[in-house]
Amino acid sequence: MEDSASTEQRADTDAPGATGAEQLHALNPAFIEKVMNAVDAGDKPAVLELIEPLHAADMGDLLGLLRGKQRRKLLDLLGPQLNPEVLPELDEPLRDRVVAAMSNEALAAAVAALETDDSVYLLENLTEQRKTEILNLLPRIERAHVEKGLSYPEDTAGRLMRSELVAVPHYWTVGHTIDYMRSVDDLPDEFYEIFIVDPSFHLVGTVSLSRVARTRRHIAMRDIMESEQTLIPVTMDQEEVAYLFNQYNLISAAVVDENERLVGVITVDDVVDVIGEEAEEDILRLGGVAETDPTDSVVVTTRRRFPWLLVNLITAILASLVIAQFEATIQELVALAVLMPIVASMGGNAGTQTLTVAVRAIATKELNATNAARIILREVFVAGYNGVLFALIMGVAGGWWSDSFAIGAVLAAAMLINLLAAGIAGVLAPLALERLKIDPAMASGVMVTTVTDVVGFLSFLGLASLLLF
Amino acid sequence: MEDSASTEQRADTDAPGATGAEQLHALNPAFIEKVMNAVDAGDKPAVLELIEPLHAADMGDLLGLLRGKQRRKLLDLLGPQLNPEVLPELDEPLRDRVVAAMSNEALAAAVAALETDDSVYLLENLTEQRKTEILNLLPRIERAHVEKGLSYPEDTAGRLMRSELVAVPHYWTVGHTIDYMRSVDDLPDEFYEIFIVDPSFHLVGTVSLSRVARTRRHIAMRDIMESEQTLIPVTMDQEEVAYLFNQYNLISAAVVDENERLVGVITVDDVVDVIGEEAEEDILRLGGVAETDPTDSVVVTTRRRFPWLLVNLITAILASLVIAQFEATIQELVALAVLMPIVASMGGNAGTQTLTVAVRAIATKELNATNAARIILREVFVAGYNGVLFALIMGVAGGWWSDSFAIGAVLAAAMLINLLAAGIAGVLAPLALERLKIDPAMASGVMVTTVTDVVGFLSFLGLASLLLF
Repeated sequence: MEDSASTEQRADTDAPGATGAEQLHALNPAFIEKVMNAVDAGDKPAVLELIEPLHAADMGDLLGLLRGKQRRKLLDLLGPQLNPEVLPELDEPLRDRVVAAMSNEALAAAVAALETDDSVYLLENLTEQRKTEILNLLPRIERAHVEKGLSYPEDTAGRLMRSELVAVPHYWTVGHTIDYMRSVDDLPDEFYEIFIVDPSFHLVGTVSLSRVARTRRHIAMRDIMESEQTLIPVTMDQEEVAYLFNQYNLISAAVVDENERLVGVITVDDVVDVIGEEAEEDILRLGGVAETDPTDSVVVTTRRRFPWLLVNLITAILASLVIAQFEATIQELVALAVLMPIVASMGGNAGTQTLTVAVRAIATKELNATNAARIILREVFVAGYNGVLFALIMGVAGGWWSDSFAIGAVLAAAMLINLLAAGIAGVLAPLALERLKIDPAMASGVMVTTVTDVVGFLSFLGLASLLLF
Repeated sequence: MEDSASTEQRADTDAPGATGAEQLHALNPAFIEKVMNAVDAGDKPAVLELIEPLHAADMGDLLGLLRGKQRRKLLDLLGPQLNPEVLPELDEPLRDRVVAAMSNEALAAAVAALETDDSVYLLENLTEQRKTEILNLLPRIERAHVEKGLSYPEDTAGRLMRSELVAVPHYWTVGHTIDYMRSVDDLPDEFYEIFIVDPSFHLVGTVSLSRVARTRRHIAMRDIMESEQTLIPVTMDQEEVAYLFNQYNLISAAVVDENERLVGVITVDDVVDVIGEEAEEDILRLGGVAETDPTDSVVVTTRRRFPWLLVNLITAILASLVIAQFEATIQELVALAVLMPIVASMGGNAGTQTLTVAVRAIATKELNATNAARIILREVFVAGYNGVLFALIMGVAGGWWSDSFAIGAVLAAAMLINLLAAGIAGVLAPLALERLKIDPAMASGVMVTTVTDVVGFLSFLGLASLLLF
């Protein structure tokens, strides 16, 4: 019995077969090298022996690390021996490629073996025609669940939830509930709450499984249920779902339709992925990168990065046009051309600091209309403080280098002005974008650096042409 | 009974008292305004009525949104009526300030009411003397648990875990286990796994609670336990713990000491916070900001941002020294001063794109020694591709604007060279820092923009002085 339990769990997503320290290094370079060699040699027994102990999530990562040709060869070698649990672990672009290479029968078999949320993930990007072909191959109930899941918009609670759940009427006792769980075959693999529903499947309460385990058999479920809980509307955006799970430390939560009927359950493991994705999105957007995937081709990657660089080119040209207004001034005093990038660069960096903090504060709801005025004022003070410090440093250094007190003074004044502009733009830009329902992480950066480039060149060259000649 | 259940859960961290949609807007500006007014008026009944329905996590956020003076006034008004569950919800700087203002007795009462991981969080930053005073006020067993927790290094599994868990011997049956859970009073509030231990508390297996619920009374625990599972060493870094929970979709995991004895359990809700913190840290570091908190004072914030700006100043001066080498060239052709920031800026942005992707790929273990060569080559191709496109665009535009084919050609060549440098530095810098055990998010940015500034000015002005005169 012990053996069968441990074999079973190896195929199970939630129970990896090694200690934490070993798992951390499961995909070490030496191991990957070995797999690659076995795949290249077409040595199926060796490949199977190597990947057999891998957890589905690690197997998914391994597929991502292989080159396209090797990956196809490995999948051909495995055929139906590929554990279906591996498929939901793939990132979207890789999932689409792997799923496209599978036969309808193989894909339907995998879909039937998975829980609804994972099945929906596998099918969501297929053409309508192929979706229908696969759905036709599924058992009737499974098909209904998957069709329902696919009917909800992408990135909503409906796509994250699974339909498999445990629901009992409120007049059942704990004993009755336990007997029911022992006798029914199609319970979810893992669950953490039992839902109490009325005959029309309206949710009237929940009981955590640990509470059931602690309670005597004769007690009624209604007497131990919690009647107030976090209900997730099926159309809620996944980002808001992630916020609720994070904020209220939820493990699982009921999903209800527009009539408040119980339609599914979201568990925290699905939400952890969303939290990761949303932070990832913010990081990439702040870095000026749209969606990305290491398995994308060079051409796709280039196309994805091009638009942002083009926007940057336009703002860089704008800054150049400012410089062009002062050609005569520069001609007379070339030292200005040497010093001007320092002012622009310091403004850009100070602005990036402020906007990074502001974007994160908006995302974590620490910055909103209530305290915006206070935070802006605070940033102005911080900018002014650092502005004075750097104005002093650069005023002295620039004056010494150019051997001109006047140039030092102009440099100091421009530095202070630009750092103040950076502080103000760094808070105002993300707040304005948020108000306009544009993701602040997406466009604040270019707005702020445009401001700091233009203000930097304009204040430095403008003050120079006014004061030095 | 139903009422008592719902009152109890209101004080419970894991069960907020409203539907998801309402909770999302619990802290709306109008509400905060009302609380502020009631606090300013010192109207305790009004304050209590307003905050009573708030979940502990929302109450923590509310304290963060108030101004220092208002916060102190609110805490004074509440006194011992402050729900202890609110304290672990506070960010570190705010926690330290609130805890510093509490009496030893009040703090000890709060610590005694919380689970170990939360108690440790409250005490970890106190002076040794105050820690001892508080520990002396605790019940003996609670004190032992908290002292043990405090003995582990910060940011390790030992600090995240709680000691409260359910462990039974392997020869017990399911019935025996359920009877035990029904009869014991000091079980954890919520748990998801039962640990099977030998007499010296070595872990021999785990059984998920849902498996216990599904299994008949006469079956022995050893027959349904999973004997292979993720064991977390008590000294494991919290970032690695978060990786394991995320990668293997864990809900809870056993923590073991150096002798593989079971010492605690980590649940996913604590890890969700860590995942958030780690992503936050990467975002802030990429933005050139060290730790930050909106409740920090202006002086503290300024001091935290100063070092990064100073580093940037030094690199900006380095770039200026490159320009200074070409003063004579610029003097002869001022158009160069107008165009040169475009080359540097495009390089900086392309480099930031690449390094953002590389930093994230390293963090998610998608980029490592195995595939580094391939990814670098890929980035060179992407950079070359975009480089040719922007060389063409800017060659034509620059040539037209300056009315000189030669300037256009120099601009195009410099653009291509700098975008290639950006692509290579964007991957190499984070990889090199990772190898040196420095967080790539921390310093890659400054390294890459230094390269792109220097290469940008050098290639543009250098080619110009070689080819145009």
